Amino acid sequence: MRAEIVSVGDELLKGQRVNTNAAFMAAALAGIGVPVGRIVACSDGEEEIAAVFAESLERADIVLVTGGLGPTRDDRTKKAVRQLLGRGLELSEEAFATLAERAGQRGVEMTESLRDQAMVIEGSHVIANTKGTAAGMILLCGEQFQNHYLVLMPGVPSEMKAMMELTVLPFFAALSDTVICHTPIKTVGIGESTLAAMIVDIEDALPAGTTLAYLPHAAGVTLMISTLGREREVVERDNRTVVDAIVGRAGMSIYATREVSLEATIIAMLSAGGLTVAVAESCTGGLVASRLTDVPGSSSSFLQGFVVYSNQAKERSLGVSKEILEKFGAVSEEVARAMALGCLEKSGADFALSTTGIAGPAGGSLEKPVGMLCLAIANKTSGVLLSKTLFMHGDRELNKFRFSEAVLRELWESLRDIPVTER
Amino acid sequence: MRAEIVSVGDELLKGQRVNTNAAFMAAALAGIGVPVGRIVACSDGEEEIAAVFAESLERADIVLVTGGLGPTRDDRTKKAVRQLLGRGLELSEEAFATLAERAGQRGVEMTESLRDQAMVIEGSHVIANTKGTAAGMILLCGEQFQNHYLVLMPGVPSEMKAMMELTVLPFFAALSDTVICHTPIKTVGIGESTLAAMIVDIEDALPAGTTLAYLPHAAGVTLMISTLGREREVVERDNRTVVDAIVGRAGMSIYATREVSLEATIIAMLSAGGLTVAVAESCTGGLVASRLTDVPGSSSSFLQGFVVYSNQAKERSLGVSKEILEKFGAVSEEVARAMALGCLEKSGADFALSTTGIAGPAGGSLEKPVGMLCLAIANKTSGVLLSKTLFMHGDRELNKFRFSEAVLRELWESLRDIPVTER
Repeated sequence: MRAEIVSVGDELLKGQRVNTNAAFMAAALAGIGVPVGRIVACSDGEEEIAAVFAESLERADIVLVTGGLGPTRDDRTKKAVRQLLGRGLELSEEAFATLAERAGQRGVEMTESLRDQAMVIEGSHVIANTKGTAAGMILLCGEQFQNHYLVLMPGVPSEMKAMMELTVLPFFAALSDTVICHTPIKTVGIGESTLAAMIVDIEDALPAGTTLAYLPHAAGVTLMISTLGREREVVERDNRTVVDAIVGRAGMSIYATREVSLEATIIAMLSAGGLTVAVAESCTGGLVASRLTDVPGSSSSFLQGFVVYSNQAKERSLGVSKEILEKFGAVSEEVARAMALGCLEKSGADFALSTTGIAGPAGGSLEKPVGMLCLAIANKTSGVLLSKTLFMHGDRELNKFRFSEAVLRELWESLRDIPVTER
Repeated sequence: MRAEIVSVGDELLKGQRVNTNAAFMAAALAGIGVPVGRIVACSDGEEEIAAVFAESLERADIVLVTGGLGPTRDDRTKKAVRQLLGRGLELSEEAFATLAERAGQRGVEMTESLRDQAMVIEGSHVIANTKGTAAGMILLCGEQFQNHYLVLMPGVPSEMKAMMELTVLPFFAALSDTVICHTPIKTVGIGESTLAAMIVDIEDALPAGTTLAYLPHAAGVTLMISTLGREREVVERDNRTVVDAIVGRAGMSIYATREVSLEATIIAMLSAGGLTVAVAESCTGGLVASRLTDVPGSSSSFLQGFVVYSNQAKERSLGVSKEILEKFGAVSEEVARAMALGCLEKSGADFALSTTGIAGPAGGSLEKPVGMLCLAIANKTSGVLLSKTLFMHGDRELNKFRFSEAVLRELWESLRDIPVTER
């Protein structure tokens, strides 16, 4: 079984809304072993909707649609389906009863346009809408479309998600005989081509049904290992074999083999060791603190952050000496180390990190160009563990993000390298 | 001229990545008066890519593609285009020279796979990649495809965006005969329906060719006024008339009528007044500092940030008294005011803001639920200007963002309300 997704709505074609619905549906279908062949976004026009449905039904066994079921005049999905399949509308008694009950509770009048929300295409399997008004439909399209399925849902994400979980996924899971397994391999500090070169022979010898995808992002790359087959045991074994082989080869650059962020991994390591951290940031301007505090429960490990943009703030809040600042300049490993030590002392944390650099677009020089980062990591037991200088090549926001990723990577490595007993 | 967008990549079909690229490109094309007919996401398969390109080139004058240009073997866009158009590859001397220069600066070896990134389809107009390695291409597809254009760009958002802005948009804007004018009206602290009710009569009387769209986002709503026509003068006049009418009606909630962030607006106001700011953050965890320092040139106005998660940090770094913390609790307007005053004193800044609250998911209680925020604004002349308690209803990350937006809004209002001479 193979699916396609059609997202109806002019707002998608104007770029006024990002198509998060399609990603949700695709991931949900992957979870029940139904691969998605294409995702198409099209306009609200009746002819266009009908044309896109016809093309997708030709190629795919299941076509999932969102959008165009609402009460306003730009909602034309039902009209397009009536035209395409030559069927009429009928009232869903069940959907109508639910609507009437909810309207009664809220003291809303049962208008004609509200009643229309319970009108479904003849012969539909009705999908109850637990979060809104428009009824959804699963349609078996007849011989003209090789008995393929058309599924109509509203475009409001919460309504679609509830329909997927309560009705659509169980319906098609019962029909599917494919098992699928995805494992993300989250790397840090390694480029796409370096990684590819390290695992070229593993990639050449992938078992049948297993694919490997590189998902590059602003600060690195995630490898996605996907295996498809009929028997769960075989699928999971094949997937695990490839993941293990890659971890064996590139383990030093891998921080997780599940969907988790670098900052959440660090907070978990700190928390497991009963450790605390504080951060001293110049060029990252609070981004490192913000990323760490994005993690639920981070308050038990994250003590405090110092965003010290000016030299005066570095002196006053962290005790960095005027002499070091004048001799080496604010962007120097010497200052980064003094910031990390000052941060340890002022916060009382077990670990401290620091960043000082030039995010740009202004402020660079020949010796200290835009994109230059000095960082340091220190801990209570040993003082400064390391300091480092790196060069990035992005705009201001990208540099800030890559700076934050670089220092978090060093913190992760420092935590990983310390024997558990000494942490 | 009509466009379609094709996004290549299995990760989109598996729901592992949300297609934000397509929304960006669609909005950018709308900006130069080129409507988008369809957006298609397809797999990495060579045959599939070629089939999708052929179909889109049939329907649209311009087909914009992202993805499949990287150095790994799941990058098959160039192969598919060679097959489709029957053309070979050639080395782009310019792209190669840039690659070699950057590799030299970073001490990276010029490998075969890096060199491949400068290989382009014969007859391409090469699009320089200022943020990465893979060269982009604009291809005139010949009579077989009615001389329609195919544009190839990498899938990494920062690389694609730079290519769009520097090369692709100017290229096609020069070919388009439609004049379009968009004006965003950036609001703060007002809901969609309240705003709609305030301007209902303006919306009912829009001039022909002008549309008004509500673009709600995590912390509010932006109104987009779009006017389309043939004559620049008429288009700009009609657009301006509607914008002025809305500003006249809802001016107190509007911080800008151009594409600028709230934080950039604040930095510009501070900078114009020769003023400085410092921030004291608990529940926002560095996000306010990070947003302010995202603004180029913010270092002249932003002095310093204190991310004080623990009570001890609030005491030690900001001098908040133990008594206040114990009597009112960390999440209270009393503590918010003490934090703002301590921040003023420790930093020497002209303005200070503070946040203390409960981002969740844990840590809430009946009296102080998850989503509760206490904030304060203070300045050197008057001490505390205001403190306030607000309640949000999101998950942890959304709450953090809304908290940061709320306190920045208050700072913006405080700066706006103060006569220039007294700032």
